[in-house]
Amino acid sequence: MKWVNVLGGIVGAAALLGLGIILGHFAIPKGSDVPTPSIFQDLDLEILESIMQQLDASRIRENLRELSREPHLASSPQDEALVQLLLQRWRDPESGLDSAEASTYEVLLSFPSREQPNRVAVVSPTGNVLFSCRQSEQNLTGEQGGPDVVPPYAAYAPPGTPQAVNAAKHGVAGVLVYTDPADINDGQSSTNETFPNSWRLPPSGVERGSYYEYFGDPLTPYLPANPSSFRLDPDTVSGFPPIPTQPIGFEDAKILLCNLQGASAPAAWQGALGCDYKLGPGFQPNGDFPADSQVNVSVYNRLELRNSSNVLGIIRGAVEPDRYVLYGNHRDSWVHGAVDPSSGTAVLLELSRVLGTLLKKGTWRPRRSIVFASWGAEEFGLIGSTEFTEEFFSKLQERAVAYINVDISVFANATLRAQGTPPVQSVIFAASKQIPAPSLGGLSIYDNWIRYFNRSSPVYGLVPSLGSLGAGSDYAPFIHFLGISSMDIAYTYDRSKTSARIYPTYHTAFDTFGYVDKFVDPGFSSHQAVARTAGSVLLRLSDSLFLPLNVSDYGETLRSFLQAAQQNLGVLLEQHSISLVPLVTAVEKFEGAAGALDQRISALQKATPDPLQVRMLNDQLMLLERTFLNPRAFPEERYYSHVLWAPRTGSVATFPGLANACSRAMNTSLGSPAWAEVQRQLSILVVALEGAAATLRPVADF
Amino acid sequence: MKWVNVLGGIVGAAALLGLGIILGHFAIPKGSDVPTPSIFQDLDLEILESIMQQLDASRIRENLRELSREPHLASSPQDEALVQLLLQRWRDPESGLDSAEASTYEVLLSFPSREQPNRVAVVSPTGNVLFSCRQSEQNLTGEQGGPDVVPPYAAYAPPGTPQAVNAAKHGVAGVLVYTDPADINDGQSSTNETFPNSWRLPPSGVERGSYYEYFGDPLTPYLPANPSSFRLDPDTVSGFPPIPTQPIGFEDAKILLCNLQGASAPAAWQGALGCDYKLGPGFQPNGDFPADSQVNVSVYNRLELRNSSNVLGIIRGAVEPDRYVLYGNHRDSWVHGAVDPSSGTAVLLELSRVLGTLLKKGTWRPRRSIVFASWGAEEFGLIGSTEFTEEFFSKLQERAVAYINVDISVFANATLRAQGTPPVQSVIFAASKQIPAPSLGGLSIYDNWIRYFNRSSPVYGLVPSLGSLGAGSDYAPFIHFLGISSMDIAYTYDRSKTSARIYPTYHTAFDTFGYVDKFVDPGFSSHQAVARTAGSVLLRLSDSLFLPLNVSDYGETLRSFLQAAQQNLGVLLEQHSISLVPLVTAVEKFEGAAGALDQRISALQKATPDPLQVRMLNDQLMLLERTFLNPRAFPEERYYSHVLWAPRTGSVATFPGLANACSRAMNTSLGSPAWAEVQRQLSILVVALEGAAATLRPVADF
Repeated sequence: MKWVNVLGGIVGAAALLGLGIILGHFAIPKGSDVPTPSIFQDLDLEILESIMQQLDASRIRENLRELSREPHLASSPQDEALVQLLLQRWRDPESGLDSAEASTYEVLLSFPSREQPNRVAVVSPTGNVLFSCRQSEQNLTGEQGGPDVVPPYAAYAPPGTPQAVNAAKHGVAGVLVYTDPADINDGQSSTNETFPNSWRLPPSGVERGSYYEYFGDPLTPYLPANPSSFRLDPDTVSGFPPIPTQPIGFEDAKILLCNLQGASAPAAWQGALGCDYKLGPGFQPNGDFPADSQVNVSVYNRLELRNSSNVLGIIRGAVEPDRYVLYGNHRDSWVHGAVDPSSGTAVLLELSRVLGTLLKKGTWRPRRSIVFASWGAEEFGLIGSTEFTEEFFSKLQERAVAYINVDISVFANATLRAQGTPPVQSVIFAASKQIPAPSLGGLSIYDNWIRYFNRSSPVYGLVPSLGSLGAGSDYAPFIHFLGISSMDIAYTYDRSKTSARIYPTYHTAFDTFGYVDKFVDPGFSSHQAVARTAGSVLLRLSDSLFLPLNVSDYGETLRSFLQAAQQNLGVLLEQHSISLVPLVTAVEKFEGAAGALDQRISALQKATPDPLQVRMLNDQLMLLERTFLNPRAFPEERYYSHVLWAPRTGSVATFPGLANACSRAMNTSLGSPAWAEVQRQLSILVVALEGAAATLRPVADF
Repeated sequence: MKWVNVLGGIVGAAALLGLGIILGHFAIPKGSDVPTPSIFQDLDLEILESIMQQLDASRIRENLRELSREPHLASSPQDEALVQLLLQRWRDPESGLDSAEASTYEVLLSFPSREQPNRVAVVSPTGNVLFSCRQSEQNLTGEQGGPDVVPPYAAYAPPGTPQAVNAAKHGVAGVLVYTDPADINDGQSSTNETFPNSWRLPPSGVERGSYYEYFGDPLTPYLPANPSSFRLDPDTVSGFPPIPTQPIGFEDAKILLCNLQGASAPAAWQGALGCDYKLGPGFQPNGDFPADSQVNVSVYNRLELRNSSNVLGIIRGAVEPDRYVLYGNHRDSWVHGAVDPSSGTAVLLELSRVLGTLLKKGTWRPRRSIVFASWGAEEFGLIGSTEFTEEFFSKLQERAVAYINVDISVFANATLRAQGTPPVQSVIFAASKQIPAPSLGGLSIYDNWIRYFNRSSPVYGLVPSLGSLGAGSDYAPFIHFLGISSMDIAYTYDRSKTSARIYPTYHTAFDTFGYVDKFVDPGFSSHQAVARTAGSVLLRLSDSLFLPLNVSDYGETLRSFLQAAQQNLGVLLEQHSISLVPLVTAVEKFEGAAGALDQRISALQKATPDPLQVRMLNDQLMLLERTFLNPRAFPEERYYSHVLWAPRTGSVATFPGLANACSRAMNTSLGSPAWAEVQRQLSILVVALEGAAATLRPVADF
């Protein structure tokens, strides 16, 4: 899991303030075949229930122990060993799948130098080192000291040795990043309040991460990173940080930050290090360092072409083998990655074991094909999944029903959390209503979920709220580049109990099996709950005669985006003689066509449809998401083609192309190119919605 | 039908030579329901034969008489009257279709001014008019004098009144275009050798045409030209001619050209006007005009937003209504347009009458849906068809089986001529083998065709050769923008009897019913032959249980493109360390996958497949063409996304992206961006071919 956008924000703010070195902190909360099949084969509720029962918490725990035993950074020998583990599991004669293969891409990764460790120090004017930040985390559990624990670094940050001179007027020489106890530890920071004494981040913990702006292999945008593929010159690649960057722990950050002089930082920048945060430049006269000391940052990261593998495991569909339900997670971690991503992979392996066992016994084969995927190099920028979508673009666009992502499966034990596009809402609801929530005396996962995340739907009343998909994990290329209905499923926090941006040891060497076993999910019942929810969603998508994708739920989203546009942009647009009426009409057409389709589905379900009628209808449902793609809509946004879910500036939940164009045009004159772009974006949107509605109408209408 | 590329060539040459005015000429040869259906419904050969018999030459003749009675320039009242005629025919209770609708776009057209006619004159230095070119064609048959005959003009050429001064060193002030008797009349030019005494172009005949570089409505690229759509500012549109341009007849061209002085024009520029063509500048001293006379060109064309309609007629498929076989032609003409396009529409109406009659009688309904289309404003740049593909992009990409275009159905009586992408070759062959050629004693259309156009296929031996699709008619947006397998079918010349670039009255006021009836196809047996061929292709595509698209025929094209690349570019690429091996491998993978698919089809045809198995296989066939699309391959080429059929510079029939990139890189240094682009194009191609091959493999393989 990664948080690219946050990092972009940090670098931007740093440049704006023109400080020699910025001490930033993350301030954004985050969040053997069956008998001949019938062509009418439908979801078998008994088999589904039996699968739910067989998904075993203790086996998930054992999977996690095995997966997180050693650090398995992308392309490392330990990562490759896990490739073999997956292949072995998925090829097991008793519990394996129909087939499993690894496929390897040659991708550009970034690593710190073994010979020259990155270094952050305070130096006196004469060059004496007055203070050095830690170069590795404290070895608190015996797992932080091994040679395979990659030292903290900012992947893709360029090498360099800037020194904190207020060099250029608005120039920034380097960036230091740390995680403030206010943002990650609910303010707690002492040794006895933090791991291994609690789940909180120890003072020496440092969050690693990728600082690449886009996703996919940086050298091969839009092309799979095969050995023969055309590659950009690394020196000309855009999207890498422009200046050396290094993450440090809050223990060290405190020493730097609490010694700064200058004006106080804004209130929103203050944290829990126990001092008033100043903006600098320079150290205060009466502090730990002479006032003319400087901070020296030495970064020796280097770019390397490495082999990174995806592992794919297939269960062939009995009736419609050309329809693929995909279920994936990445395999690579920054260190041991027990939570991120092994908690997801532990669930994946348990689910594939249960399904594989039924398959090998000959008691079950899905109606549609199931594709399990273990992606490589996600932490560096969703690389394995993106290369996969680039390689199999046509096949996936034609045939993929949906993509289920379970990356971190358990952030915490309180509730289900799901993100996805509207068509997957109904199937997640249906699944979660049938599964008991852990330790809640029979309350369903759905009924528990609605207590934590809910919204008032104009159609359904109070329902759990589904989050929208950004680019935080491997679903990004599926939804944004390919227009495949996607979702991400996890168990997560009670927000009344913690404001931690994410689980505290995220991307540190403390994200270990013991951490999960003791603090995150003792007993693994939340892991089991996620396995059941995601497994039920998978089965419903792969086995139901009628695809359980509710396309009319998109109408609700469109309507709310429209209302937000009317309320927030309506006056502005009117002043520029731009009418929203065509958009209103398009939304109405969509709603009308989707509603009528719902009725045809109901009628067909009651009748005795022929198998081609069902297939035609399912094709309408499956392909709806694709109709929102327009590769020419946002030429400057790499991979983003979905006109409803592209990155959006501003806080209003509305159509991104329109909103972004408006915010760019706002301060330009009438008739400017920026206003023309607003009109173009509006037309792109109207055409997409009208085109989408057209695909929902009876298929013989034009 | 239009010849955009030719015009680009003329303007380019003109600019190169830097003459005040260029007297150019076209020198490039051109080219009630049935009982409940069975889900196994297949092509019924008896019904097919009955349809062939019912297609009636005399009814086609009557259609043509009605369609070409009056000039019907795009968006004119007469064009609108034909919209009503089509609707009436397609809604006829006895012989109509299931439904028919007109849909209207608001598009930018270009017309000469009624008040200020365009004018070409020779003027003396004192401003006296010494000679004026004709402003309209001679009224030879009583049809050339009416108020609705649009005067000759170059659509989209800007207004202006340049005078032939050798103004700027390399500047050109205006362009005059004429058609030389050498190119159109096999050298004949006298009144008694030309229409109405023969099929040849009369001396006053002037070829109209569109001089817009791209296709589609100029103001709404990639968006349908709906009233609310975003429109470009007409002043900033690219693709219009930069300078005033006017077409004239060869009668007038002779007077201008034979009076020029200066060096002789190159041999390839000489024609049949009976003088030595000179390059100018200026008139010769002893000619018809004082040497210091100048040519004055006054162009008053203006751009107008006009409503232009498509008419769509639907026959709902009985079994797979969501699969569309499209059959279309444009409706608009420059003047009466008996050949272009009414010969095609006359065939379209006869075919839809025969099918509609069977439909209304309840004896037949196709397996798949049939969509008949009458496009508007093709002559201005394929506008109606392009807007249609923009509006229904998603629906068509998902569901269109193929597009059959019959524009000019009969150029001449000698032989069938077909253009298309490789998957349609087999169905055109199958159809043409079953139909007798007109007046040849039982010789099939196929056997006659092979006498005129043939090639040696490594797979099949001697076969008729299928031409490739450029952008000369409405198939262009279907193949290039949407990746829908397309074809264009016509009857054409015996090239041993004429070298005419195209039928001589093309785009003039002499292209009338009498011209067709007397000279082009007396008896209309060639029209009937085209109706039968295109009708049989249509029926085979709409009714066959297994789609008659042979995807392995693409292998032959890929192999020949590869060999051409190896022979023509291999050494050059090797010098730049660019290997063709990945491309060789990709072509081999395609051939292997296609061959194996052929075998699976054969096996399935012998077995008793379930309907979903057939559907899955047909989807592989239908969607293959789509896999060659890459909207990011040629960003500078509007609409062109098909990596195999984009415009190609150079004469070698090979992969266009690779060839074009090589020709641009050729004279740049090693490591230049142009050589990087060669590598990028090679990768785009390899990825497309590998992706295509992947879609042909068994569907449960990944």
